[in-house]
Amino acid sequence: MRRLSIHDEDFATKFDRIVEDRRESDANVASDVRSIIEQVRLKGDEALVDYTMRYDKHALTADVASWKIGKDQCKVAYDMLLPDVREALDLAATRIRAYHEGQLPEDRDYRDATDTRIGARWNAVEAAGLYVPGGRAAYPSSLLMNAIPAKVAGVDRLVVCTPTPKGAMNDLVLAAAHLAGVDEIWRIGGAQAVAALAYGTRRIRPVDVITGPGNAWVAEAKRQLYGVVGIDMVAGPSEILVIADDRNDPDWIAADLMSQAEHDPTSQSILITDDRAYAAAVEDAVDVLLAQIATGMTATESWAQHGVVVVVDDLLEDAPALANRLAAEHVQIAIDDPEAMFAKIRHAGSVFLGRHTPEAIGDYVAGPNHVLPTGRRARFSSGLSVLDFMKRTSFIELDEAGLAKLGPAAAALAEIEGLPAHARSVTVRLK
Amino acid sequence: MRRLSIHDEDFATKFDRIVEDRRESDANVASDVRSIIEQVRLKGDEALVDYTMRYDKHALTADVASWKIGKDQCKVAYDMLLPDVREALDLAATRIRAYHEGQLPEDRDYRDATDTRIGARWNAVEAAGLYVPGGRAAYPSSLLMNAIPAKVAGVDRLVVCTPTPKGAMNDLVLAAAHLAGVDEIWRIGGAQAVAALAYGTRRIRPVDVITGPGNAWVAEAKRQLYGVVGIDMVAGPSEILVIADDRNDPDWIAADLMSQAEHDPTSQSILITDDRAYAAAVEDAVDVLLAQIATGMTATESWAQHGVVVVVDDLLEDAPALANRLAAEHVQIAIDDPEAMFAKIRHAGSVFLGRHTPEAIGDYVAGPNHVLPTGRRARFSSGLSVLDFMKRTSFIELDEAGLAKLGPAAAALAEIEGLPAHARSVTVRLK
Repeated sequence: MRRLSIHDEDFATKFDRIVEDRRESDANVASDVRSIIEQVRLKGDEALVDYTMRYDKHALTADVASWKIGKDQCKVAYDMLLPDVREALDLAATRIRAYHEGQLPEDRDYRDATDTRIGARWNAVEAAGLYVPGGRAAYPSSLLMNAIPAKVAGVDRLVVCTPTPKGAMNDLVLAAAHLAGVDEIWRIGGAQAVAALAYGTRRIRPVDVITGPGNAWVAEAKRQLYGVVGIDMVAGPSEILVIADDRNDPDWIAADLMSQAEHDPTSQSILITDDRAYAAAVEDAVDVLLAQIATGMTATESWAQHGVVVVVDDLLEDAPALANRLAAEHVQIAIDDPEAMFAKIRHAGSVFLGRHTPEAIGDYVAGPNHVLPTGRRARFSSGLSVLDFMKRTSFIELDEAGLAKLGPAAAALAEIEGLPAHARSVTVRLK
Repeated sequence: MRRLSIHDEDFATKFDRIVEDRRESDANVASDVRSIIEQVRLKGDEALVDYTMRYDKHALTADVASWKIGKDQCKVAYDMLLPDVREALDLAATRIRAYHEGQLPEDRDYRDATDTRIGARWNAVEAAGLYVPGGRAAYPSSLLMNAIPAKVAGVDRLVVCTPTPKGAMNDLVLAAAHLAGVDEIWRIGGAQAVAALAYGTRRIRPVDVITGPGNAWVAEAKRQLYGVVGIDMVAGPSEILVIADDRNDPDWIAADLMSQAEHDPTSQSILITDDRAYAAAVEDAVDVLLAQIATGMTATESWAQHGVVVVVDDLLEDAPALANRLAAEHVQIAIDDPEAMFAKIRHAGSVFLGRHTPEAIGDYVAGPNHVLPTGRRARFSSGLSVLDFMKRTSFIELDEAGLAKLGPAAAALAEIEGLPAHARSVTVRLK
């Protein structure tokens, strides 16, 4: 964990180093992924059989159940949930759905002063593919956060691909798939699943958009296939910035910081506070917490390698500029008047206001999406939304009189751009 | 040019082949581009000097004018425009601005039934880079279509990179840059320009989003740098689908088809009509037109290689399904009741309704953006808009009572996902 003070002589340089710290894997997976994609494109299902045996030790056979998890199985998984878990998942789904319904964009259709009719219509994509990791990161909440916006958008066919290592399925994920109304679940993972979704195989029909988290191979496959299909974003390790004064219980802030650190050793937790003694108290509380939680090993590694504590003079004066440089995925503002601080924050994935809004609330039940830009990408990108599953078609309609008004200018510009057929398509209709 | 009839025995196969026809360059530019990006990242301005001499025969020297085109120069170029060209550009800019102002998204900020405050705020990116090709494709209209949405979005710093081969500048582009309020223009092109915009150099500060058309090197550089910066889209050759009955003057439809064909030999023009004799009349009109226009050679090659004429039985019954398969960049519906047809079209970049709306009107003066998804990408992506220069920050605010309502469900889900620090950050605040 690094400690910085705004009074450090080399503060600017040190802070720059934190901003520029790339925590993303530089593993050279690009060429592996390129060859997996090529194999799936060429050999289709046969390649899926091979890779799934090699990487997941799962045999895809003539038995359809080895390929696909049935909707009935998902319903059973949902029905078998413990009551409090089912209620919690239901609450999460209901609130996520309500928030995302409010994102549905409005069509435009109007006539302007020249009586030209212009506008735009939104439509959902036909099919969306959702990658769900196996193992540690197989989160039912993540399935809800990806699947519900797709369904709200109006996607006809929602397809999940998820690895089932040695045949093992994750019942919580199946239950969430039932709740979200997923249409197909394929027992396929890795870059090969992404390639199958993008190009299609004999068994799996292709989709138009692929979203969802994954390891470096999955992320690289999405990046390479961007353009063949739409993708949600290039995702990296998670991060949180907590801006807190000394009037927060140090235990609360310690838990907030560790809630990111426990995700992965590459996660990052940053505290900005205005009191050195308070910073020390939070650090102590972190140490106590780390010894108590089952994820302590991961969180300890993340905190040691990437944790940062910054002490500034004045939170409202100093923190927003630092926050905008970091453009963090999650920003928690634990002070009395969070609004004044929030007004100065331009770059952040999601902001959690006040002392009683731990980031974890947003991960599960608040409603806004928890799929958010990481690695400073909040400078230019947004969290997942229904818009990722929709696209806009603009339109124009002129009558003879309207064309007479706008046509000559269009023809003049076509001529100076050296595009005579463009000009002709206008002038041939004038008179 | 290929002729298809819906009665052809192998129509489905033939049409599939047209849908799957990739007209995009398979030139293996990826590794060249990777090395250019690496050099610019390592050597900065020095690499720009080298590549600009090698590819553009233009010397970037100690004289700042060799690097940058001044705003005063742009104003001079604008003032020197012929009056009718200036008026046409002004009209285009005014109408593009008005349409895009209507795209500005609304923030959300509300309290739901549990008194949880949730919402989202939109902000512009700080800096946007706009690539403007040199040579044939240096279109002032394209500069307006990229720059105006960025300015409407509220981008602080709008940077253009454009090659000036042997020092030659394009006065029309400079005039458009003046009109659109571009802040900086660098005389640098190719993948090296895209790399400089993404990573920054000593002279050029980095940007957050890069848009604009370019050749295969520029497109590949954008694709490779996606994630470091935001990009507008992966763009391919232009295309138009014209759906027309036999009551259109064949000369009009021929001009519409050739207005795409004249862009590039890889462009595609497709006619769907319901009358074989009418199709022949349009083909004849195309031949006459091709002999008359200065772009005839390009258009002839495009039409010969990629042109398609499809004859169907019933336009309203048959054309929409074909149009949705093609998901074309431009769809012109030249019939009496275009609305009924449009209602059935789900995948298209932009639609031009009726007999008096040639696609060229949309290229210049209608208002909607002419940067549109190509190569069937209208299945999942949209034309350029102010949203490409903005991003959304979601937010959540709970008080003690609100946390008491939502907290237990969040903690329960965190526990089953094996994330105890998440759970702790909630439970530590309850009571």
